[in-house]
Order: sequence, then structure tokens, then C-alpha cells
Amino acid sequence: MTNPLLSDRDVDFLLYEVLDAEGLCALPDFAGYNRETFDLVLGNARRLAREVLFPAFQAMDAEPPRLVDGRVAVHPRMRELYPAMVAQGFIAATRPAEVGGAQLPHLVAGMATAYLMAGNAAAYAYLGLTTGAAHLIEAFGSDWLRDTFMRPMYEGAWTGTMALTEPHAGSSLGDITTRAVPQSDGSYRVVGSKVFISGGDHDLTENIVHLVLARVDGAPAGVRGVSLFAVPRLRPEGERLVPNDAHAAGVFHKMGWKGLPSIALNLGDEGDCHGWLVGPEGRGLACMFQMMNEARIMVGMNAAATAAVAYQESLAYAQSRTQGRSLGAKGDAAMVPIIEHADVRRMLLRQKAIVEGSLALLATASRYADLAAHAVGDEARRDAQRMLELLTPLAKSFPAERGFESNALAVQIHGGYGYTSEYLPEAWLRDQKLNTIHEGTTGIQAMDLLGRKVMAEGGAALMAFGAVVGASIDEARAAAVEARWCDELAAAVEALGSLTMELGAKGMAGDRDGMLRHATDYLDLMGTVVVAWQWLGMATAATRGLARGDGASTDFYRGKLAAARYWFVTELPRAEGLTARIREADGCFAEARAEWF
Amino acid sequence: MTNPLLSDRDVDFLLYEVLDAEGLCALPDFAGYNRETFDLVLGNARRLAREVLFPAFQAMDAEPPRLVDGRVAVHPRMRELYPAMVAQGFIAATRPAEVGGAQLPHLVAGMATAYLMAGNAAAYAYLGLTTGAAHLIEAFGSDWLRDTFMRPMYEGAWTGTMALTEPHAGSSLGDITTRAVPQSDGSYRVVGSKVFISGGDHDLTENIVHLVLARVDGAPAGVRGVSLFAVPRLRPEGERLVPNDAHAAGVFHKMGWKGLPSIALNLGDEGDCHGWLVGPEGRGLACMFQMMNEARIMVGMNAAATAAVAYQESLAYAQSRTQGRSLGAKGDAAMVPIIEHADVRRMLLRQKAIVEGSLALLATASRYADLAAHAVGDEARRDAQRMLELLTPLAKSFPAERGFESNALAVQIHGGYGYTSEYLPEAWLRDQKLNTIHEGTTGIQAMDLLGRKVMAEGGAALMAFGAVVGASIDEARAAAVEARWCDELAAAVEALGSLTMELGAKGMAGDRDGMLRHATDYLDLMGTVVVAWQWLGMATAATRGLARGDGASTDFYRGKLAAARYWFVTELPRAEGLTARIREADGCFAEARAEWF
Repeated sequence: MTNPLLSDRDVDFLLYEVLDAEGLCALPDFAGYNRETFDLVLGNARRLAREVLFPAFQAMDAEPPRLVDGRVAVHPRMRELYPAMVAQGFIAATRPAEVGGAQLPHLVAGMATAYLMAGNAAAYAYLGLTTGAAHLIEAFGSDWLRDTFMRPMYEGAWTGTMALTEPHAGSSLGDITTRAVPQSDGSYRVVGSKVFISGGDHDLTENIVHLVLARVDGAPAGVRGVSLFAVPRLRPEGERLVPNDAHAAGVFHKMGWKGLPSIALNLGDEGDCHGWLVGPEGRGLACMFQMMNEARIMVGMNAAATAAVAYQESLAYAQSRTQGRSLGAKGDAAMVPIIEHADVRRMLLRQKAIVEGSLALLATASRYADLAAHAVGDEARRDAQRMLELLTPLAKSFPAERGFESNALAVQIHGGYGYTSEYLPEAWLRDQKLNTIHEGTTGIQAMDLLGRKVMAEGGAALMAFGAVVGASIDEARAAAVEARWCDELAAAVEALGSLTMELGAKGMAGDRDGMLRHATDYLDLMGTVVVAWQWLGMATAATRGLARGDGASTDFYRGKLAAARYWFVTELPRAEGLTARIREADGCFAEARAEWF
Repeated sequence: MTNPLLSDRDVDFLLYEVLDAEGLCALPDFAGYNRETFDLVLGNARRLAREVLFPAFQAMDAEPPRLVDGRVAVHPRMRELYPAMVAQGFIAATRPAEVGGAQLPHLVAGMATAYLMAGNAAAYAYLGLTTGAAHLIEAFGSDWLRDTFMRPMYEGAWTGTMALTEPHAGSSLGDITTRAVPQSDGSYRVVGSKVFISGGDHDLTENIVHLVLARVDGAPAGVRGVSLFAVPRLRPEGERLVPNDAHAAGVFHKMGWKGLPSIALNLGDEGDCHGWLVGPEGRGLACMFQMMNEARIMVGMNAAATAAVAYQESLAYAQSRTQGRSLGAKGDAAMVPIIEHADVRRMLLRQKAIVEGSLALLATASRYADLAAHAVGDEARRDAQRMLELLTPLAKSFPAERGFESNALAVQIHGGYGYTSEYLPEAWLRDQKLNTIHEGTTGIQAMDLLGRKVMAEGGAALMAFGAVVGASIDEARAAAVEARWCDELAAAVEALGSLTMELGAKGMAGDRDGMLRHATDYLDLMGTVVVAWQWLGMATAATRGLARGDGASTDFYRGKLAAARYWFVTELPRAEGLTARIREADGCFAEARAEWF
């Protein structure tokens, strides 16, 4: 039996029993959709992922792209995979009809995409990067840029990249030094070096458009001097495309994501690299950040998908691999499938709790993204935007950090075989590690959550969050979900609120160091609570499902309740200790001097 | 500056300030040693590891051994590395003089070996495997076997392997099916297939001796029918060595440890594979297990060493890589080394706490191994053996599990670069994953600890442990170490004792499932407590050091106290929640049915 990548039953459960995807069709912008058309999209994605993308995964992992005569040659399998994905309209799936998009809710598009990511993350990434880059031009570019660059990108004729990072600056984007010199025709000449540019060169499409952060000559130092440019590999000159002096200087050898090249990109080595401003001068980072939720949720979804496919693999292995006997069985009893050993079930249940909790969190965040853009009324959109902003660093980092742990468990369940590349879990473990690093490391997400998101507008987002979780708890109580879980989640959210107020007060009093000292612990704490909220919601839907008495789903619902119980018994109790540690603001590491190490 | 692999200052601290290595020289068997000769051994190991082994690491990781015409060809660099290691006498370092050994304490030999492992784990493994296999022959083999096989192995002329695992049986060694048929000359004909045989074939030495578990025809089913055999690749026939029908059937492609081949080994394909019994018939597993402490502590040491070298790498990177500014600094301030960011220091301090806590635990276990074999008086030896047995599953699994986390942090600190093989942390992360799997998975260690070690002799080992920790706490109080740490460790050890009694009572009452249900949590709990004990001991020595006022070591001692504080503030508090969870014996995973997943 081949790996299903994700559980269809779980995805359907999230969409139709937990998050009311059909309810979105009541919004004017989604009026063209219904459950049937959603299912059509999902069905296509499932087939494509299982029949086309996944079968190419191992071969692409084994033979990474190479730099040949200054150009990157991708794996030959990509020549079938790329057009197959493009043909299903995934690049502009969530974009409006007027730019050629399908105007599909993020909630549904995200789940469909999760299958592609689970099947072959590197292969899908060519599209995901293109969506992000084209969306920037859509949102901030001139009509000429939209016509010239965005359109072929959304069509998949060209791809796109994000070219932010520079060798010396890393996460510190205010320190980039790539220069842009204004020209009389309104364009700029760009000179600089970028690193870690995923999809930065390849031989799949005719052209590639880099969205580049650079500094206009004379601009102020720091983030306020940074602007955003569209810099194509080939630039239009009349009817032709001519080389634009943007070259692959080298390919990085990565531990995972081997199907996708990550390159060092040199711009303007010969002084002939043309770029076009996207958005106002000096607002490059602001424009970037406006799209950041999208990119970060995409990373979180990737992390959840990478954990999911490995969970499915280790589950199938544990069900079929026989070894050892139950405790107390005689030596001549038949060997049992290893899922019968309690510790193997522990590892599987932990994976299930992480994978399905992550998917639920991503789906919830995606739904807020839909409401933020398409709900009726400014207030409804603003409320949804606030929740989206708050959840984004959690939806990015929780699946990445816990997903890595979950992927390691998939290796562990496979035992010695798990350590070999004859089996797939080790490849997924390598793939997963990137997700705690790119699009803002976990440490950066923690600063974003505690330094910005929960403190913005006097804590409005956290108050809104409290109200939303309160409503979930009321629903759970009404459905007769385990009362203890409801009480414990309510207590944890209240404790989180008081802790945040204390931290805010500390910051207001000028002690920003003290406020942010345990930001990563805070991220861990809130991630644990937020996923408990997800599990409570799933437990509510499962309890209702059991009450409906749909026999075919009984095991599925029981499994949901078992995983929810796992989270409430083993993870939520960590909240108390984390809260105490953050409150105490112990300085063990903050006060440790560099020379003590 | 090149990576020091381990901190010399830390190793010296453990040996001479914490564990009184010189005190061992008062034992008759170690009377030939003193601090100077210990330092000579360490100095040689340090040079060899830094100048010979480590420079070959990356090349060996990049080009794994290949199977060519039925023989495994190892990396050419091994031809210099192997004799260089052999020349320093590492194979028989801890063995008695009468078998050609140096009779060095495990405490010192272990620390010396840690440098070799940190420099190039795969390269050292050829020796470590040989030590283990030869030691089995030394302990249980006939004089002929000792003369014929053990001697060239200890000399490094031949290497050895452990050939336990079979494809269908995995950890369940009672289910192996390799057959041994007795012959009139006292030898056996062996037929079977083994997998994951590290160093199972290579072109480094003339011969390889496999220590093989097999079942003599007619033996009872299960573990009591399993015997141990020495099965060479070439067997002696008169003055010659002739092929012994033991063939490499394939090489596994592993995610790490790429310098060491892991092969599928076929024995007796042509009916001409001779083997010789080691130890009594039917006692194969018992013999194996008698050497198991040694092998498991070697794995733990490897895990600690692999975490250590990555910690050193990320520390140096964090001290030299500039990026961003301190909170509140202006945008035009100079960028700072990333060690100045609190979250980077958090990751470094966590690595330090794990690495140095693991090394201390391994050193402590090694010291008990020395006393178990060489203390004066049966009782002293038995007491030490009991502590060694108890600590072994912890010394194997804690460094492997937490070391993996620590290795992931080393990648994280390197950011995008950490994800590339242009830098080394990703290779060490891949290497580390094996240590939670081989020589008994973490789940197996948990069952060993809770099902056997703490319950043996009516809980004698845990009582002895309580007394030893109590003495450490008294010492710490006398040295005026933070009283809160002393109180908290005392409370944790007491709670561990009561919990264990409850679990024992549950087992005695017939509920072995309930007793062992949370065995992995118990392993985690006790690992956390045992490492807290190590940190208290190090804090005591550091406090004394500060009191002596040796200025050159002030920063070092302060660093020790900072890491101890970290462990007591962030890790030991987990004990309470773990204890509650184990006591409650919640059945979330034990009761989850296979069909719910």
C-alpha cells in the first residue's frame, strides 16, 4: 500500500466538521464554490501528489541540481512535474479572477497544497515561491510590472524568487548592501550579491523574476533605506528577452530539499542588471512583511505536511512490521506488529497529536486569512486580520519545531532501517530541519510574537484570542467534551493573559530586555496552548460525530479523542512550568557572559 | 581557529577536580599510572584527533564505502587513520597487561576516546567494534580462540564486529534463525543472514572476526536457544588463512556515519562457513549482555562527543559571526557577534548543559566500571557494579536523545549556513541520530532501566543511588553551593524513590503493563535527575575552584555555575510533571487501539 501522504479523512474532518469550509461559500467572493467544487480541487491535488509528485521524490533527493556552465540544471523529472502542477492552476489558486486566479479560499487551497508538499516539497516549492513573488507585484507593482512580470508568473510560464538574504547580514535585513541606482527611464541598475536564493536559477522556464531587497543610492541606513525591486533573469527589450546580468554564482549543498536549487546570486557583475521598483522607495521591508503571513503560513504548512507523510509511513510500518511479543506472552507465541508495543503507540500518538494539531492550526490560520480578505464588513475583516497576525508566528514555528521531533520519531519507529536511505523517513527528517530556519528562524518568530503581535493595539489580539477560545470552550462544554480539558484550557489562556500583561508592563517600564528574555519560551508556551485549543475543537467535532453514530467513522473519532487526551495529559501541563519560568525571567542565559562559554 | 573537538579545560576539570582520577592510582591494578601518564595519553589522543582524524571527517562523510566485486572498499584516508589509531594502543587500552593491554582506567581511556569520536566517529568505530568483539573472546573464549583470534584483534592486525541483528527479528534477539551445526572437530557450520553489521567488510586489515548469535540445531526456541560464535572472514587452516564463506551481500546507505560501512552479511551460502563457540551453548545472549554495559557506554560517549564537537563549532561561530544589534541599539551602531543575542546564548547554554552534563555522566559511569573491576574487596566491586548497571541505560540514552536536540541547535545557530554541507553541523546532526537506535533503542533502554535495573535485588541499586546522591548533596552544602539546588535535587531523588516503589508494587501485584507503561517517561525523568546530580557535583568543584581564587579559571568556573543554574531552573522542574504523569499511568497511548490511528 502506497503512502497516502495525508489522511483524507482527517482533511475532510477539518474542512467540513471542524472549520465549516462550506460556510465560506456564503461570502460573495466565494459564492462560486460549494463542497463539490472544493472536493474536485482536493481530488485533483490528491491524485497529482500521489501519482506524479511522490513517485519522483526519492530520485530527486538522490540527485540534486548541478551548476553546469553557469546555469543550474534541475532533475529531469521536474520536466513532467512542473507542467502537471501548473496545469492545475496552483500558482494563482487563491488570487482573484481579474489577475487570472481561481479565487479559492486559502482554507481549501492550503489543504490541497499540503498534499503536494507532502508528496514532494521541493517540487512544489517552484510554484509556491512564484506565488509569493507574483503576489508582491500584484499588490505593489505598477500596471506595467503586473502586465509584464506578474501575468507570466501566475501562468507558470516564468517563476519567481525572494532575494533577501546577503552573506554578511542574514536575518538582519536592514543591513543589506545591494545597491540600486536610478536611471532616467525610471528603472534602476542593481549591483549586489544574494545567498540562499531558492529556485534562483533553473532550466525549467524561460525566465525567472527575483524580488530583490536593495538600497537606493543615498537612502538612509537601516530598514528605512531598503526598497523592493523586480529583477528578472532576462529583461524585456522591445519584443525580445535579453540577458539581465543576474547570474548563479554557485549552488549550496543542502542537507534536504534536494530537488530545489538554492543558489548564490550575483546581480550586476557587468553593470547591466536592470531592476524596477515595487512599491514606494524605502518601503521594501514593509511591502515584504505585508506578504510575510502568506510565506510563513506556507512554511508552517510545509512543516505539517512533511511531518504528516512521515507519520503515515511509520504508521504503516508499525502496522505491518512484526517483532517481539506482548509483555507476558510466551517465547513461542507469534511475533506481533510493533504497533502492539505501548512505546511504539506512544511515538505514533505523539506524531498524530503533532501532525493533526499542526494541520488544524494551519487550517485555522488559513481560514482567518480568507476572512481577513473576504469577510463582509471592515470590522469582520479587521478582527480576522488580527487573529491571522497573532497566529502566524505560531503556525510557522510550532509545526517546524515539533514537526522535526515528529519526523525523528518516524525514523526511530523504523529502527535500523529508519537510519538508511533505503527508507524515506531519514529524507523527511533532513527536509524538515529547514523549516525552523527559513522565512524567519524560530527565534525571530518568538520576537515577532511577543515583541509585536501580542503587544500591538494594547493587547487587542490576545484579548480577541481569549474570546475566540472562550467560545470554543463553551461549544466543547455544550457537546459534553471532557470537562477537565475545558477547565484546563480556560485556566491556561487566563494565565497566558496575565503573564502577557506583566510582560507588557515590564516593557512599558523600559525593560525591553526583561520582557523579551524568554521570548522563545513564550512561543513554546503559546504554541502548546494554541494547539490545545485546536485539539479541543477537534474533540468537540469528534464527540458530535460519535453522537451521530456514523459507524464507519467510529474508530476515526475515537482516535481523535485519544490524541486530544494525549495533548491535555502530556503537553498542556507544561504550560504551568513555562509560565513560571517566563514570569521569573531567570537570567541564567541572559546574564551568562560570552567568555564563560 | 580549528575546532578543539572537546574543551580540554572541561575534560581536565572532570578528571581531576570532580572525579578524582588520580585517586584511582591508589588501586593496585592502576598503580603504574599517575596524573602525568594520564595526561600523556590524553595529549596523544588530542593531537591524533585534531591533526589526523578530524581533517579527514568531511571527505569521509562525502564518499561512503562502496561494494566492489563483493568486497567493501573504504575511503582511502582510512589507510592513514587506522594505523595511526592502532599505534596508540586504543584497542586494548583498558585490557589487562596479560592480554597485551595497557590496563588504563576506563575513566581516562573513555575521555581520550571521546576526542577520537568527536574528531571522526566512523573512523574510531573500527577500533571500538574490535575492542568489544575481542573482549567477548577474552572473557568467554577458549585458549585457542584467544590465541588465534583475540590476540591479532587487540593488536589491530584484524578487526571485529558484532553480528546480532537479523532482518526479521530486529531488537528481538530471541527470534534469530541463523543456524549452527556441530562438527566432529568441535567447530560448527554456520548458515544465516545478518543485517546492519558495522565494519562487516572492508579492505583495511587482512581478516575480520564476527561475533555471531546463532542457534545450535535442536536448541530450544527463544533466548535460551541462542549461542555465541566467532566466525572469521578468513579461517586458519594450518599456516594459511582461507576464505570462510562469509560474504558482504550489500551495503546499507546510511544518513550518517558514512565513513563506516554497514553491511548485510551472508554466512554459509556455500555451506562452508566455520564458526567456534564462545561461552557455553545456549548462553549467547547472557555473554553478550555481560559486555553490553561497555558497548552502551561507548554509544553514550559517542553521542556526547558528537554533541560536543558541534557545540564547539556553534560556539566559535556565534563568537565570530556578526549580525544585528543589541535590543535598543540604534540602526547605525555596529553589528554585534550573535553570541550577544539572548536567544543565541540560550541555545549555547542549553548545548553546554547537555554536552557537559552528558560527559560528566559518562565519566561517572566509566569510573564505576573501573571500580567494579578493580576496587579492592568484593563488596566495593559489587557496589560499583550495581551503580554501573543502573547508570548504563541512562548514560546510553540521555546523551543520544538530548545530544540530538543539542546537535539540532548547532545547526540552528548557524542559520541558513547550518543547513548546508559547506558547514559541518548538519553532518553531526545526521551522525547523532544513530545513537538513539543502535545498541538498544531508547525504548529498549527504558525497559531495561525500569523493568530490570531499578527493580533488581529489591531496589538495591536505587537505594545505593540515593545514598550516593545524598553524599554529593552534603558535599555541595559544605561547599556553599546554592542551597535551593541541593533542596530541589534531594526532593527529586526522594520523589523518584517513592514513585519507583509504587511502580514496583504495581508490578508485584501482576500489573506489569501498568508498571512499564510510562517506562520512556521514567527514563526521561531519571535522566533529568541524574544529570542534575552531575551538575551539582560540577557546581561543587567550580565553587571550590572560585574559592581557591585561581584567576585564569574564573570564567570557566562561572560558566559551570551558569550551566548548572540553567539545568536547575529549566530542566529539573520538569521532574514533578513527569512524576505525576508516570504515577497517574494515564492510558492515552496504551489504551489507544491500532485501528484508531
